[in-house]
Amino acid sequence: MVKQERAARTRKALIRAGAEVVARDGLAGTSLTTISARAGVSNGALHFHFETKKALAQAIEAEALTTVRQIVRDAAAPGGGPLEALVAATYRLMSAIAGDVVVRAGFELSDDPGRGGGPSIRREWQVWVEQALWRAGQDGWLAEGVSAHDAASAVVAATVGFEVLGGQDKAWLSEAKVTGLWDLLLPRLTERHALVRAAAEAGEAATGSAAADPDTP
Amino acid sequence: MVKQERAARTRKALIRAGAEVVARDGLAGTSLTTISARAGVSNGALHFHFETKKALAQAIEAEALTTVRQIVRDAAAPGGGPLEALVAATYRLMSAIAGDVVVRAGFELSDDPGRGGGPSIRREWQVWVEQALWRAGQDGWLAEGVSAHDAASAVVAATVGFEVLGGQDKAWLSEAKVTGLWDLLLPRLTERHALVRAAAEAGEAATGSAAADPDTP
Repeated sequence: MVKQERAARTRKALIRAGAEVVARDGLAGTSLTTISARAGVSNGALHFHFETKKALAQAIEAEALTTVRQIVRDAAAPGGGPLEALVAATYRLMSAIAGDVVVRAGFELSDDPGRGGGPSIRREWQVWVEQALWRAGQDGWLAEGVSAHDAASAVVAATVGFEVLGGQDKAWLSEAKVTGLWDLLLPRLTERHALVRAAAEAGEAATGSAAADPDTP
Repeated sequence: MVKQERAARTRKALIRAGAEVVARDGLAGTSLTTISARAGVSNGALHFHFETKKALAQAIEAEALTTVRQIVRDAAAPGGGPLEALVAATYRLMSAIAGDVVVRAGFELSDDPGRGGGPSIRREWQVWVEQALWRAGQDGWLAEGVSAHDAASAVVAATVGFEVLGGQDKAWLSEAKVTGLWDLLLPRLTERHALVRAAAEAGEAATGSAAADPDTP
């Protein structure tokens, strides 16, 4: 039991150390030796958990994906509309990318040639945004003349842009940037923008402390 | 003279081959030997032109930057407003990223840890977009309640998002995506959106053939 716990802790430390190195240098610039040294474990222990860099990258992506799925689930407040969930999810996602190196590395791995296939986190985020805006259109939330498809592309592109630019300058991941984006987009997307904004803010206030520090278990 | 011409041609071939490999694998995953083989020149010739990967990366960025500066200069039609220039520049930039591997690699190098400092192309694009929207605000083009700063952030983030997502799927760099973004943003940014759109389209129609194929010298 104690041995299993220690193994789980070591695995977690390796994923975190791997994420730190990947976020800084990319997968190709990363060596397994650097990662084991950073995690404070032997090379042998690292190889016990992850035989290759690709295996470690996949573990980082899997853990990041779990967090992102939790974020979009939590953003869908009971009784809330799809636009409210979308707005809340963007705030929480940017906060997680800023504060949780595993989420950041998971996103960055999305277009890494060495990641080894499978659906990426950026792709999953894109599908979720498209569904949220499609539902908003179906439920009559979108203003006349607004295409759910175009709106989804704009939101996906802007959030991926924040994520990428945030790698160099964390200001791109700040609440102010997300607010600026929605100040611009919401009045065009929906006539009920004040309502969506107020509901999303009320939801954030109710759960804000949990979202503010994604590193807290 | 012939020798100088041959050296210039070799240098150009190396920059192009380097850009192709960098765009595919990133700088860390790239070896100078792969690049010289791809360009069809000896390792010695490569080292004559570029002593290190960093030197080659800087040459790629410099050439890409020259193209991007030309794009934003050309987008500013004589007598046209700043929003018209901004709209035209986004079409031309996405077309260049899709069709010119040196421009694509130059953008991708913007957040490469091995690029070796100096202002990046993404950064220069950001400054230009901020200036265009600041001028639009000064000249009375922006609708009431629209912040030039927020608008610039949204446009920069969305275009960087298109660029990054376009590395995996070229549809993100298509005219349709850029049109979708402006269909969403322009009616919010300015009351004169129909005018801006018509002027930008007229400008494109006049010079469209040049922008459509950025690889043509």
